[in-house]
Amino acid sequence: MPGLHLRELLIGSPLPTDRLESERLDTVRALAVLSPDALSSIAYANQEIFLGLAVAGWVGLSNSFPIALAIVVLLGILALSYSQTIQAYPRGGGSYTVAKENLGTSMGLVAAAALLVDYILVAAVSLTAGVAAMTSAFPELWPYRVGLSLLLLTIITLANLRGLRESGTLISLPVYLFILTYIGMFMIALIRTALGDLDPLPADSFPVEQAVPVTLFLVLHTFASGCTALTGVEAISNGVQIFKPPEAKHAKQAMRAVAVLMLVLFLGTVGLTQYFNVLPSGEETILSALARHVFGKGLMYYLVQTSTLLILFVAANTSFAGFPRVTSILAEDTYLPRQLSLLGDRLVYSNGMLLLATLTGLLIVLFKGDTHALIPLFAVGVFMAFTLSQAGMVVHWYRLKGKRWLQKALINGLGALTTMFTFWVIAVSKFLDGAWIVTLLIPLIIMGFRAVHRHYQEISGELSVKGFPMTLKPLPHPRIVIPIAGVHRGVIFALRYALSISQKVTAVYVEIDPSRSEKVRSLWERWGMGVPLEIVPSPYRSVIGPFVDYLDRLDQEANDGQLASVILPEFMPAKWWEYLLHNQTAWLIKLALLYRRRKQGTIRAIIDIPFHLRH
Amino acid sequence: MPGLHLRELLIGSPLPTDRLESERLDTVRALAVLSPDALSSIAYANQEIFLGLAVAGWVGLSNSFPIALAIVVLLGILALSYSQTIQAYPRGGGSYTVAKENLGTSMGLVAAAALLVDYILVAAVSLTAGVAAMTSAFPELWPYRVGLSLLLLTIITLANLRGLRESGTLISLPVYLFILTYIGMFMIALIRTALGDLDPLPADSFPVEQAVPVTLFLVLHTFASGCTALTGVEAISNGVQIFKPPEAKHAKQAMRAVAVLMLVLFLGTVGLTQYFNVLPSGEETILSALARHVFGKGLMYYLVQTSTLLILFVAANTSFAGFPRVTSILAEDTYLPRQLSLLGDRLVYSNGMLLLATLTGLLIVLFKGDTHALIPLFAVGVFMAFTLSQAGMVVHWYRLKGKRWLQKALINGLGALTTMFTFWVIAVSKFLDGAWIVTLLIPLIIMGFRAVHRHYQEISGELSVKGFPMTLKPLPHPRIVIPIAGVHRGVIFALRYALSISQKVTAVYVEIDPSRSEKVRSLWERWGMGVPLEIVPSPYRSVIGPFVDYLDRLDQEANDGQLASVILPEFMPAKWWEYLLHNQTAWLIKLALLYRRRKQGTIRAIIDIPFHLRH
Repeated sequence: MPGLHLRELLIGSPLPTDRLESERLDTVRALAVLSPDALSSIAYANQEIFLGLAVAGWVGLSNSFPIALAIVVLLGILALSYSQTIQAYPRGGGSYTVAKENLGTSMGLVAAAALLVDYILVAAVSLTAGVAAMTSAFPELWPYRVGLSLLLLTIITLANLRGLRESGTLISLPVYLFILTYIGMFMIALIRTALGDLDPLPADSFPVEQAVPVTLFLVLHTFASGCTALTGVEAISNGVQIFKPPEAKHAKQAMRAVAVLMLVLFLGTVGLTQYFNVLPSGEETILSALARHVFGKGLMYYLVQTSTLLILFVAANTSFAGFPRVTSILAEDTYLPRQLSLLGDRLVYSNGMLLLATLTGLLIVLFKGDTHALIPLFAVGVFMAFTLSQAGMVVHWYRLKGKRWLQKALINGLGALTTMFTFWVIAVSKFLDGAWIVTLLIPLIIMGFRAVHRHYQEISGELSVKGFPMTLKPLPHPRIVIPIAGVHRGVIFALRYALSISQKVTAVYVEIDPSRSEKVRSLWERWGMGVPLEIVPSPYRSVIGPFVDYLDRLDQEANDGQLASVILPEFMPAKWWEYLLHNQTAWLIKLALLYRRRKQGTIRAIIDIPFHLRH
Repeated sequence: MPGLHLRELLIGSPLPTDRLESERLDTVRALAVLSPDALSSIAYANQEIFLGLAVAGWVGLSNSFPIALAIVVLLGILALSYSQTIQAYPRGGGSYTVAKENLGTSMGLVAAAALLVDYILVAAVSLTAGVAAMTSAFPELWPYRVGLSLLLLTIITLANLRGLRESGTLISLPVYLFILTYIGMFMIALIRTALGDLDPLPADSFPVEQAVPVTLFLVLHTFASGCTALTGVEAISNGVQIFKPPEAKHAKQAMRAVAVLMLVLFLGTVGLTQYFNVLPSGEETILSALARHVFGKGLMYYLVQTSTLLILFVAANTSFAGFPRVTSILAEDTYLPRQLSLLGDRLVYSNGMLLLATLTGLLIVLFKGDTHALIPLFAVGVFMAFTLSQAGMVVHWYRLKGKRWLQKALINGLGALTTMFTFWVIAVSKFLDGAWIVTLLIPLIIMGFRAVHRHYQEISGELSVKGFPMTLKPLPHPRIVIPIAGVHRGVIFALRYALSISQKVTAVYVEIDPSRSEKVRSLWERWGMGVPLEIVPSPYRSVIGPFVDYLDRLDQEANDGQLASVILPEFMPAKWWEYLLHNQTAWLIKLALLYRRRKQGTIRAIIDIPFHLRH
């Protein structure tokens, strides 16, 4: 099959289940898998802080660095808080797990819904921001940004479907390239400034003519936008299981490393843009403008843009690591379809990945690939999940009452309070910009979780063998009905099969064209092996209706509490297009009988006798 | 079901087969059903004659009436010829029937392919020309002509799906309205001219500056275009069966009436346009310009345009009467899928109508609703079918050697020769304009006919009971295999059914998650009624592959020439969306087993045991 070959080429050949354990990553690779979301956030957070303050002119922009400082303080609290989560949940303490275990199922589902929404937004925002970095360097690509975002999405989906280890290798390089080029940029900027070779831009060329005043709302609104820098901080605590043992130790090291790197990169970029009075233009991002100021539009500039694109590209990978893991846990807890808990050919949750890719693609198309339009939807859910997770940890320590529990509870309590405060700031200041969509979506998702859960519970009750009588006997020999459209070899095979399993066999001919009935009857007399043939009239030339009515009548007359089994002689042509040349009546009868509701406890067996044709 | 209600609303409730005989039409209605194609042809034929000659300026246009006269002579020959066909084939003598019976199957199929192509073109050309009449009166509708054509197509399709008699009533009115308004227009024009109230337009305002010379090719090319006026003449001989008895007599009356009406309408319109020096503009048809000259742009003008639109609209109806009839005959002769020979709910060949509607819609979209672009494809097939049909009639009379057979053969021979000559004129002069498409398409269609025919012949050979041994015994008790995904009530029902038809039952559990196997095994020990359970490992976590391999192994070991039957326990949720929450493994196994080729003469029965859930 060519389909199979294409699939193997794209995602590799299937892996056996016993290779699951070995799919763990060393710290360097695990950091690369779990950190890009956090690190790359600085790209769009910077832009959002600028756009938030620019309306207030230079006076407004002078607040950039203070706001960045406030966000970094929040980062410190979060890092501390999540290190404790890693310690307490070495098997992976996602917000869903922590909230559910400590605050109850309802809060767990709220956290899960928020998380799922955010994984999708991380992917969408990262890919569109990555494309923005590309179009800053090559403005002629600007009209193709939606297509480019979707192309990147396809590539990252395929890489992830291939499996964890390979995507770990794939993305280590961009992450470390990003760190090196940015720190390199800071050093060049400092050295050139110290040498007097690089000056701030003049502060008079500001494009906004009528600057609005700097209000508290404006500052909080900008702070809310800037908090998108913190998205992804929790990724490591969700993904403890992908580290090599001892998982918790390696994960905590990685957590610290990520926090320090974010601090350096975020304060560095915000500080430099404010110091140099760098301004982005309509189609250029602020980081591109900064790199252009420091390096001019030369090789180094393109390297910075490339590394920004690459890290944002792999930031979307955080979602591909996280989203399928959360959906698989939810599926195991019967809140999502169980297909999401199945490992695919390559030992990854392929269905979850495909779901994520579909929803992300939809979001990119709906928002026309515009990062700035997506941002207001973004941080609400993140901070909702943060809050629930930290609050859960407080309860965890309180219940456990272990060594220094009060200190630990206080640290997580501080985390919970600050993230809750931030959540409200974001939800209120961004409500009309788009946060309302998420606040509407999360309850809907939770209703979906509950509906799925209810279904699985109900059917497990109905299917359960508990309460079944232990003395079940085999059923009596079935009565059998064979619908025929004529007398041919396929029908005779079906008839022989019928006689091998029962003595109560009837054939039925639905009479569409009365002129053919006599011929069918005489052929049957010769070939019917003594089985009676019923001819059922069909004044409206339909087969299904009269046949099903006949079955019902027969069952009523037999009055043995059983339903007759139906044997369907079906002939199977050799080529696909030849199916178009036949009526597919057997198929329609099958559908009609399979999906027809009937009295509880009665079974209508449907027996296919496929007769394969040479031609 | 809401789908059913919508369907009944649109096409009416089903009719019983015994109402078939009464669906015949009186001559007035039958004429309305079968004549619009012929009558309405004058609308586009006029336009095509003008466009063909206009390049040669006034000198060119002075050839209009002579060309029209030549076409009318051809009309007379055709009418005479077809009257004889009606007489000889009172059960309906379409070109396919006549050519096949007298010239052999191959020529019959050529005629059939040509006919099918032409029915589609009649529908497409009539609808687009009707829309052109509308946009002549209301030029602001010009940009919407494709959409308008498709809308008309939808309406006429639904009217036809409702059934013959109702569409007969529906279209009588427009046909007679058309005849009255045009003859009215001629009389007003004559009276006003006689009273000196209406003058020809001045002959100096011609838009073409560099007129080409009038060559023989130009005249023949224009004659070829004008021959589109003759399309539809054969419709009555195809549709003899829709007349009330005595069919042949009524049909011949109708044939004469149509010929006389066409003569009057065609010569009248061409004569008047030439006499008045009427010229169409870019978006106005020539008939619209004529009506505007005679009436001014008043009420009468709009009435003429409306009646033109309406008759062209119902001309498409000729195709809906003819195309499904030809496809049903071809399907009965096993040259087309047999679904096309089935009468639908309303006693019409619904499948043929839907096929016609689809292909016509496609043509309208591909040619952007432009009549002039469609015309070159049009007359080729018509005249090919004419020729074959008349030639067939010559052979018919020769074989029959009845009273005055030579005279009859000569009349049809004249018809065959003139139409063959015309066919060549059209094919050559229009080849590059688009006739090549049809000359390519017809052989392809014939290849399709033959492939379908070959398939039906082959399977009827394979399925035939001829040569089957008369002493067939019932098969031995089947071996039965039940794949299970766990132990639940649905499985136990399946197990009880299995034990009611065989003693050789095995259950199979494909082990995706080895940790569950022990639980399944212990549940089976309690509920399995002594049936052995096989656990099949699946290192790559696929169910279908290992299960099918297991079946093959089992059959090989049993070595009894039989294939084990498979019983599939399937549970059926109550709501459609709940199907998304289950793996549909039973369905996938069914597909894998049904479509898998196997040794001739062996049968793998597939037994569905649907277990319907309350929830």
